[in-house]
Amino acid sequence: MTRTSDLDSKGFTAFAPATVANVAVGFDILGFALQSVGDRVTVRAQSSEQVTIEEISGLAVAKNISLDPSQNTAGVPLIQMLRDLKPGFGFSVRIEKGIPLGSGLGGSAASGVGAVVAVNALLRKEFLKEDLSPDQLIHYALEGEAIASGAKHADNVAPCLLGGLTLSRPGEHPDVVSLPCPKSVFAVVVNPSMQLNTKDARGVLKSEISLKMHSQQSARLAAFIAGCCTSDLALLKKGFEDLVVEPQRAHLIPGFFAVKQAAMDAGVLGCSISGAGPSVFALTSDQGIALNAKQAMIAAFKSAGLDAQGWISPMGSAGARIV
Amino acid sequence: MTRTSDLDSKGFTAFAPATVANVAVGFDILGFALQSVGDRVTVRAQSSEQVTIEEISGLAVAKNISLDPSQNTAGVPLIQMLRDLKPGFGFSVRIEKGIPLGSGLGGSAASGVGAVVAVNALLRKEFLKEDLSPDQLIHYALEGEAIASGAKHADNVAPCLLGGLTLSRPGEHPDVVSLPCPKSVFAVVVNPSMQLNTKDARGVLKSEISLKMHSQQSARLAAFIAGCCTSDLALLKKGFEDLVVEPQRAHLIPGFFAVKQAAMDAGVLGCSISGAGPSVFALTSDQGIALNAKQAMIAAFKSAGLDAQGWISPMGSAGARIV
Repeated sequence: MTRTSDLDSKGFTAFAPATVANVAVGFDILGFALQSVGDRVTVRAQSSEQVTIEEISGLAVAKNISLDPSQNTAGVPLIQMLRDLKPGFGFSVRIEKGIPLGSGLGGSAASGVGAVVAVNALLRKEFLKEDLSPDQLIHYALEGEAIASGAKHADNVAPCLLGGLTLSRPGEHPDVVSLPCPKSVFAVVVNPSMQLNTKDARGVLKSEISLKMHSQQSARLAAFIAGCCTSDLALLKKGFEDLVVEPQRAHLIPGFFAVKQAAMDAGVLGCSISGAGPSVFALTSDQGIALNAKQAMIAAFKSAGLDAQGWISPMGSAGARIV
Repeated sequence: MTRTSDLDSKGFTAFAPATVANVAVGFDILGFALQSVGDRVTVRAQSSEQVTIEEISGLAVAKNISLDPSQNTAGVPLIQMLRDLKPGFGFSVRIEKGIPLGSGLGGSAASGVGAVVAVNALLRKEFLKEDLSPDQLIHYALEGEAIASGAKHADNVAPCLLGGLTLSRPGEHPDVVSLPCPKSVFAVVVNPSMQLNTKDARGVLKSEISLKMHSQQSARLAAFIAGCCTSDLALLKKGFEDLVVEPQRAHLIPGFFAVKQAAMDAGVLGCSISGAGPSVFALTSDQGIALNAKQAMIAAFKSAGLDAQGWISPMGSAGARIV
């Protein structure tokens, strides 16, 4: 097939935020959205009934992300949508990466979510009478996630789409729910200048844990969730201790323990690895502590030989939207 | 030492309720109290500075519970309290068992909690100016739990003392917190006429679980806790699926799957094993469903050859108190 003229020269651009997955004790199930860091995905209709990725710009070095839609986390969901929904036209896609690659901030999920949110707007205008449901959008975005991380986990896709704190089941049927999160809590996220491959970070994890550790971690997860639901920050803090994954991944991040200690010394409620790393996040309800923690965490990464950048964001930030 | 005359002929009697531990997805960490089923423990001061168990009456067959205080879940905490607090007198104890032995309803915890609550009242009157803290009472009651179950888990002791739904960490430092639980929810508890030894029921559990199952179970636990905290019964129901422990213990309880199916068919939110079993519990917000479920569960046990008795109780029932 050859590409012909665009049906709609304007198209739609979606902003899809970076996300912190795992959130210490919620391995593969919890995630929350950041405020101002994210990818922008523009989708235009094209008469050729296929998906074309025109351009990838922004932070990403082009050679690292495939323009082949079948190998791209924004492309794969759209191929599937085209097959299922048969709108009679195709999609031309431009991606502006705002999320560093391999940063543990849900960049692949954001490109996928941005693409499906932009396509949803396009279909509603050109083809469908109403929006696709959040479950449908998550279903399609997850198709891309499988390409990127080797597994269908909605812990980045769900908060990227819905905003705030989300809970999802690992696997094919994520059954996503939005959880309350305390309005006063800010996330400090610091991203060092290195990349970690999600598949590699998954590869270091032992496939089994002791039943005893499962119970200990469960007690912390329950405290964390109850703390979020009741805005009880002391309880949230009690639940902020990842016994299972952080100890196995910490060595992949130079300076991790110093960065964490710097955040704790600044007075945050807790600090752990964002997603598969190497980014590190901390939570606090005090903006002064957030600023101090960010600086201290960046300084600790520098002492470990890594430049780093940081952001402060409300934990309850909004999800992907048309801009 | 010989026992001499009582310092106080009245003494104090505490009612300590039966409890449902584990609560499906909260193995070793969650528990809630029942309303009208429980043990009564009466403690009198005696001049001899030791602990004497005068009598054990009620449902328990005397031969199954030791009158030796060092082997009794009510005696062990009081021996420790005597050593630590040195009131200058001893404790004479009478236990009236209302909780069937080996039923999975926290009978050993209830006797221990009843004893420490009664002693607390006695000490406040005779010796101390103020109540011991809940943490202190839990600490002492756990001493007895270690005798009974082979491990210090506060998942029966904590709800027995505090009432309602509680969260605790396994081990020496339970760090107990009370969690909100939906006011409208009732527990149906059915107890078949058989005993399961907690140590034996613990023995069937594999010491490891897969990381994948840990995540799947964590997703359910998070949904259950969020459902309880926000009174979202649909979410509580989503979280009511124990993938880890129930499948390994179900075969210890004749007719378990039929009993569970009977409860689910009656329309409960979920149904699982109470503590280490053999009692089975279900939750529902509908009193009609609760009544039907109770009858159907008893009938299912009868079909499996076991007589059974059942109770319906608000999930948020009160903890131990002086009566």
